[in-house]
Amino acid sequence: MTHSPPIARIKIVGTGLYAPERVVTAEELAPRLGRSAGWILSRTGVARRRYAEGEAQEDMGAAAARQALGGRPPELVLSASGSAVQALPDTATFIAGALGLEGVPAFSVHASCLSFVVGVQVAAGLIQAGPWRRVLLVSAEKGSPSLDPDAPESAALIGDGAAAVVLEPTPEGEPSALLAFQMTTFPSGAALTEVAGGGTRHHPFDPTTTDAHQRFFMDGPRVYRMGRQRVAELLDGLWGRLGHGPEGIDVVVPHQASGPALEALRRFYGLRPDRVVDVISEYGNCIAASVPMALHVAAAEGRIRRGDRVLLIGTGAGLSVAGAVLIW
Amino acid sequence: MTHSPPIARIKIVGTGLYAPERVVTAEELAPRLGRSAGWILSRTGVARRRYAEGEAQEDMGAAAARQALGGRPPELVLSASGSAVQALPDTATFIAGALGLEGVPAFSVHASCLSFVVGVQVAAGLIQAGPWRRVLLVSAEKGSPSLDPDAPESAALIGDGAAAVVLEPTPEGEPSALLAFQMTTFPSGAALTEVAGGGTRHHPFDPTTTDAHQRFFMDGPRVYRMGRQRVAELLDGLWGRLGHGPEGIDVVVPHQASGPALEALRRFYGLRPDRVVDVISEYGNCIAASVPMALHVAAAEGRIRRGDRVLLIGTGAGLSVAGAVLIW
Repeated sequence: MTHSPPIARIKIVGTGLYAPERVVTAEELAPRLGRSAGWILSRTGVARRRYAEGEAQEDMGAAAARQALGGRPPELVLSASGSAVQALPDTATFIAGALGLEGVPAFSVHASCLSFVVGVQVAAGLIQAGPWRRVLLVSAEKGSPSLDPDAPESAALIGDGAAAVVLEPTPEGEPSALLAFQMTTFPSGAALTEVAGGGTRHHPFDPTTTDAHQRFFMDGPRVYRMGRQRVAELLDGLWGRLGHGPEGIDVVVPHQASGPALEALRRFYGLRPDRVVDVISEYGNCIAASVPMALHVAAAEGRIRRGDRVLLIGTGAGLSVAGAVLIW
Repeated sequence: MTHSPPIARIKIVGTGLYAPERVVTAEELAPRLGRSAGWILSRTGVARRRYAEGEAQEDMGAAAARQALGGRPPELVLSASGSAVQALPDTATFIAGALGLEGVPAFSVHASCLSFVVGVQVAAGLIQAGPWRRVLLVSAEKGSPSLDPDAPESAALIGDGAAAVVLEPTPEGEPSALLAFQMTTFPSGAALTEVAGGGTRHHPFDPTTTDAHQRFFMDGPRVYRMGRQRVAELLDGLWGRLGHGPEGIDVVVPHQASGPALEALRRFYGLRPDRVVDVISEYGNCIAASVPMALHVAAAEGRIRRGDRVLLIGTGAGLSVAGAVLIW
């Protein structure tokens, strides 16, 4: 059924999810944002989200990782998070530290909301080439402190959370694999979703840097329109590589970008609507953690079975689009 | 001569370097730091460094990339930089944008000063597994705005710069390969080298976050001691995989951590001192760009020839140690 050879014979052997304790409902958020709970629900689809108040990003990641690891240590800690613990060192170090690891290599992949999807591809390449055979891939996101209450649509959308998977080479005789991967980046859309500060462009010591540069900005309608087109092109490319169309996909695990974005995914690309995993009502858009959180929920609920074809798909700041097809 | 099979048959087909215009000598820096030029030279080994005054990080990366690409576009843009342009999207997007690329995938690898060394391993895995065959790996660093004039040792050490390489599958009949890679991370040393701000731990909106959190901090003597031991262990591991010792290495391209660190590398590990590429006097420590800058200089000067065994080696914030052995 596959035209191209698989990218790598890898298997996701464990998943984990951590949701911070503090639940913030649309009703609680509504007066802060000057909107009604009904407005929040219709625009974002998010009934509840978690805020990591007093919880460290690396501890969230470590909690999800422990669940995914099931007691066996990893050979590599790969962080795939859009938010960072510090500018230096990178976030993987802090997650490794929170797990009590010393001597295990740790580094990060950063592709904004698509960090996890890209991380699967990177981990697959590393396992295929060596030297590591058991890779912990963790997305931990604490975006809530950067939300702008004067931008109610994005402020109502984002939640905090973490999730992790463990990848290993597929044992002989089993079908698990990364079958296909595709990504495109359009820098012309870089300013549509951004936190402009936190780097060399608007350095903290630059007198022209303001609080506004530290806040999350998203032009939702333009991202939605650009994403629609770019996702269609990306899926066409994937079907060409796979030798089948959307009907060959058993489970779709999308980035939980927004309620309307998930609705578009159910309607416009020929994917089976009942196979699209949708957890946005419960957790909101948790940046790069959204895909592995949805993956964990689907696996834990038995919606993904060994041998299923699983599509990971999403858009992210960049503007980037990425999709990966796994045999689970 | 090799015990383990190569990680991947990849070849570095182009290199590039960009140094900002503004040269800052030890003599110019001395009064600002309350030290003499002699003190700066003996402690850091840095006679001159460049500061990117008014130059954007992504433009520096793009300049180095254009030289490495030689007019042929990449299939993937991989940024391997310790400093970021913005918190979101990631730095690779901006480098792709500065190169005028639309639709080429772009993402980042972050492992502090070791980002480039790790990036070679990641790129090798991606080329081996697919789907990309021509990967642009870029390190662009603009750390100068974060330097602390009250910490003269690190302020005298760091410079700005960028470098890039292009990796492709090795043509049939040629020897080029990534032979071995090893990395270890010790989170117990995370606070020895850091920029504590710029993330969720000391968020810009946290009232306890101060200017000090935005500055580069390094406990040079403790990093040096911890690095000495960890590099020795790492090299022993690499020799075990390669089936030869330090005498089998033709060229050593180290992270340009400091003059004393380079001197230790020449003295303590059995490597041939005249084969250690040392550009710290000219450029200083350019964070992740140091390794590819030294690699470019060595290749341009004819010090690396096809078929040579090249060791990339360094320590970085984390504390991490990494080494890669290539057949050039």
